[in-house]
Amino acid sequence: MSKTITLADGNGGEENNNLISEVFYKAFANDILEKSEDAAIIEDGRLAFSTDSFTVSPLFFAGADIGKLAVCGTCNDLAMMGAKPKYLTCSVIIEEGFEREKLERIVKSMAKELKVNGAIVVSGDTKVMPKGTIDQIIINTTGIGHITQEGISSNNISMDDVILLNRDIGTHGATIFSAREGIELESNLQSDCASLYPIVKALIHSGIKITALRDATRGGVAAVLNEWSKQSNVCIEIQEKLIPVSDEVNGICEILGFEATALANEGTFVLAINKEYETKALKILKTFNTNATTIGSVTSTHLQKVILNSAWGTQRFLETPNGELLPRIC
Amino acid sequence: MSKTITLADGNGGEENNNLISEVFYKAFANDILEKSEDAAIIEDGRLAFSTDSFTVSPLFFAGADIGKLAVCGTCNDLAMMGAKPKYLTCSVIIEEGFEREKLERIVKSMAKELKVNGAIVVSGDTKVMPKGTIDQIIINTTGIGHITQEGISSNNISMDDVILLNRDIGTHGATIFSAREGIELESNLQSDCASLYPIVKALIHSGIKITALRDATRGGVAAVLNEWSKQSNVCIEIQEKLIPVSDEVNGICEILGFEATALANEGTFVLAINKEYETKALKILKTFNTNATTIGSVTSTHLQKVILNSAWGTQRFLETPNGELLPRIC
Repeated sequence: MSKTITLADGNGGEENNNLISEVFYKAFANDILEKSEDAAIIEDGRLAFSTDSFTVSPLFFAGADIGKLAVCGTCNDLAMMGAKPKYLTCSVIIEEGFEREKLERIVKSMAKELKVNGAIVVSGDTKVMPKGTIDQIIINTTGIGHITQEGISSNNISMDDVILLNRDIGTHGATIFSAREGIELESNLQSDCASLYPIVKALIHSGIKITALRDATRGGVAAVLNEWSKQSNVCIEIQEKLIPVSDEVNGICEILGFEATALANEGTFVLAINKEYETKALKILKTFNTNATTIGSVTSTHLQKVILNSAWGTQRFLETPNGELLPRIC
Repeated sequence: MSKTITLADGNGGEENNNLISEVFYKAFANDILEKSEDAAIIEDGRLAFSTDSFTVSPLFFAGADIGKLAVCGTCNDLAMMGAKPKYLTCSVIIEEGFEREKLERIVKSMAKELKVNGAIVVSGDTKVMPKGTIDQIIINTTGIGHITQEGISSNNISMDDVILLNRDIGTHGATIFSAREGIELESNLQSDCASLYPIVKALIHSGIKITALRDATRGGVAAVLNEWSKQSNVCIEIQEKLIPVSDEVNGICEILGFEATALANEGTFVLAINKEYETKALKILKTFNTNATTIGSVTSTHLQKVILNSAWGTQRFLETPNGELLPRIC
């Protein structure tokens, strides 16, 4: 344990989890926080409540900007608990000298994405910091949602469940990396940044009972699957060849030396549902993105572990990402 | 209107109000936001919801630290709407290299102040930014409170009301300025930073009907009184000699060239109540701080203006503070 905070402490992976449990959970200990996943469940299970601060660099990138990201990020955290996003707060911290036109573009982008969710900003805060004490702009959004399906939790996954993805993975991480490093790709690579509530709503309205749901942000799909395997005390077995990864993302992964499963997403979720709902769920997911697919199943082979089965018949553990990954990804 | 964001745009005064209305209110327009004061009132008037980001420098100062401030600030915004603080989120953005021991001290300070409010942190977020892209640490807290008295609003002040202060003013602003400028005072000057819910609870439980309540943070007492005079379309007349200001704060004001009424507070509120409650309210306020006092009344002399009556019989308008004031005060 380092005496100073490192970039790895904010990576969404192992070190980040340690910092959260050792410093924050310890000091703030309470039952609701203990059970909190993407959002806390409050008011006798009626409301979901979640916060996120957005520090992404660059501010504008293919497919989205920090404004859209700030609304999607928090609304998605609510949606992942089966909640309809309702009210958001918006707190903006701006560097002195930041262009007003850029601020207006960001705020308009937020307003547009709020409509997709049917949510509104009801309270805000604006701070300006002297030049050089903050890089451009940071946005915090905190949201309240109405729970529309109760009981979604990463503690409840069983061997009756299958594991699905709603689309191909890693485009957000790959896009930010490309933009930051000035990699010019002759491609359509863009961030998956999107509001997920419409998909969740369609699943719930069709009568599907969701076991667990999680958007694979910092730490990627690998972080989600590992957390689930531990929290539900199961083994999750994934077929590597079933994980949809675009050629562009594979290309960036080779440059990065990362695995696509460790790359951040901002509109990609992992879904655990009882096998009986698999066909129905896939049909719905495919109306939003044709890359939606089942990627694996739940077993008891190695409890609290994620096994990746390669196309060649070999097996390895997929671990929780660690190390520095990519700072300011979201 | 500047093409770039200036420090004045975040001062809690005139320029800040303009930025909020021209950029944020315009894009996010909705009824709840329009009516939102220190906190938004949601869920059919049952809940208050408010956000604040804390950028104070230095992080540790006489009377408090950024952790205590982050809990007091948001809990006070809820309390000012007559709400009992219940649930907070805590989002922390840390500079790479920040000392872990300091982080732990800050988080413990938050935990301690949560207890004063009977509130809990239920959800959080941790981001780490590369060295040099953020100065040390920023904390966002967003809170939900249960409304215990409805109808508190800065729109309802009438000539039946009197204006009270719960204590002497300006100590937070004066403390931060002293700390930042290295001014050594042989005094007990310390920030007023404190949770105000216990006082609000005592007022409400005694049967007092609060007209309006506002903690005088950025922009100080002058900003609150001016906002009230405009929103209720009244004239507020203050007796200068009745405003309690300590010798230490007066001393700092001379150095600063500020008026104490423009200095930020973090545990000081302005209260408007019907004259019939004045004696009862003062008695309660004085059990918390003996400097509590009535400072003025509501008239129709100059609608939408605040008049300061000096001890010498002269009169002047007390204006909303403008210009840069002191950045990173909270």
